[in-house]
Amino acid sequence: MFDLRAYLETKRQAVNAALERLWDDYDPYPTPLVQAMRYSVEAGGKRLRPILCIAASEAVEGSEDDVMPAACALELIHTYSLIHDDLPAMDDDDLRRGKPTCHKAFDEATAILAGDALLTGAFETLAAAGCSAGTDSLKWLEVVHLITRASGCSGMVQGQMMDLSLQAKAVSPQDLETMQRLKTGALIEASVKTGAVLGGANSQQIAALAAYGRFVGIAFQVADDVLNVEGKPEMLGKPVGSDKALQKATGPSVMGMDKAKARAGEFVESALNELAIFGIKGQALNALARYVIERDI
Amino acid sequence: MFDLRAYLETKRQAVNAALERLWDDYDPYPTPLVQAMRYSVEAGGKRLRPILCIAASEAVEGSEDDVMPAACALELIHTYSLIHDDLPAMDDDDLRRGKPTCHKAFDEATAILAGDALLTGAFETLAAAGCSAGTDSLKWLEVVHLITRASGCSGMVQGQMMDLSLQAKAVSPQDLETMQRLKTGALIEASVKTGAVLGGANSQQIAALAAYGRFVGIAFQVADDVLNVEGKPEMLGKPVGSDKALQKATGPSVMGMDKAKARAGEFVESALNELAIFGIKGQALNALARYVIERDI
Repeated sequence: MFDLRAYLETKRQAVNAALERLWDDYDPYPTPLVQAMRYSVEAGGKRLRPILCIAASEAVEGSEDDVMPAACALELIHTYSLIHDDLPAMDDDDLRRGKPTCHKAFDEATAILAGDALLTGAFETLAAAGCSAGTDSLKWLEVVHLITRASGCSGMVQGQMMDLSLQAKAVSPQDLETMQRLKTGALIEASVKTGAVLGGANSQQIAALAAYGRFVGIAFQVADDVLNVEGKPEMLGKPVGSDKALQKATGPSVMGMDKAKARAGEFVESALNELAIFGIKGQALNALARYVIERDI
Repeated sequence: MFDLRAYLETKRQAVNAALERLWDDYDPYPTPLVQAMRYSVEAGGKRLRPILCIAASEAVEGSEDDVMPAACALELIHTYSLIHDDLPAMDDDDLRRGKPTCHKAFDEATAILAGDALLTGAFETLAAAGCSAGTDSLKWLEVVHLITRASGCSGMVQGQMMDLSLQAKAVSPQDLETMQRLKTGALIEASVKTGAVLGGANSQQIAALAAYGRFVGIAFQVADDVLNVEGKPEMLGKPVGSDKALQKATGPSVMGMDKAKARAGEFVESALNELAIFGIKGQALNALARYVIERDI
């Protein structure tokens, strides 16, 4: 039986240690900007995107070390997106992971700039890894490309824009799915695909892992929506019910709670089907897909 | 005699045409986000960074085509930085290049996201160029690295943070120069260096062009400060005197107008000295350095 709990903890520690080492490069600048960046990166995330990236690499017999800089870059991008989403002009959230959000702990200008610097830092990390001796720089450039596609105006940023524009609107299940695919799914899919590419996957494996990531990504967002209604604030580190207060388009609001949960389950089943070709090597990804809808944080 | 005016106009048109083609990739998403991105990119900049990049490439016998994607990426980064700097939480500017700033023409959330998407799009553009057949992907990855170093928390974003933190303070000429080097100089230096790397410069040429860019970058910021006092609003497309109103640290405020102008002139002289090894091939860069402090916009 695969011990997901131990796996998550081991990988989380490895990712945190690698993230910690990133700051060495910014030592000449121990300013409020770097403090704000670290504050948000170290606020205690699950590191799900980096772990998916590592697990995908391991599924194709790549190593953790092969992909660690990319795993870190994905977490930097995720963190920047949270900082900007929490801003007063967006979701105006005061708490994140049980702590004041970046613009509350620092100020709004610092939070905007910390997000900008984390996003830039993600690509710096990828470029530095791909420029070092003995690496396949084309692969790293492909990873820069797929991550930018997933996180910019054809991906996550577009999804956040849609999320804002769908507030207080009558939303079709199809628009909801598009928004969730862009806002959350795209970067999760990119995380898995990045692990596959850097781990040395062949094109059949990349296609299967990309599809796995796509399904897991939407399931993750639906599960997030469910937790925003039914989760425990002390576990989540933020109040529940904020989606409803903002009249957000969510799984539960668009199709009802039961249907939303069933839908998340179906996406996870579809994700698991993609893992068949990996046999036992896919066991971490298998457990991670189930975890995405069973977690309480 | 080198006709700088014709050169600027020709290159500006070429850059604008290349920028125009970038939007094709975002056609499936003709949303307010893309509209806001285009609005700011097409608001009529001088395209100085792309032109410096092209001119540097030409100085080492590279071609305009070699570097055009990078030239575009530099302009996207510059545009994102203007959008975010103009936000209410930062400089709170209503006008830019004679038009309402992005958050005035759209709204604050859209402006933040448009900036994020432009920054991401810059690296997408670089990665796409470097992944295409027949290119030297390592060179493009090096360019991603040098541009991220120049624009993130060890460069431009750090400079903007310093700019905000030095408001209404007694500022030493040394702190002023550090701030100007980071806020404006770093990306201008990176623009020149990018052109050099992609144009096929050798290490001596890269060093000379990087130094040229460093001097031009600071001269540019000092000239900007001078224009903020003495410029014509109808030429600048924004009110003058905003630096003083915000109690910004500028050349004129820290060392007085005459000294600031003399200092800008000295930096340009230093920049010109670096061009000796390029002979006639450096004539565009020579004229551009002079232009930086003689311009009225």
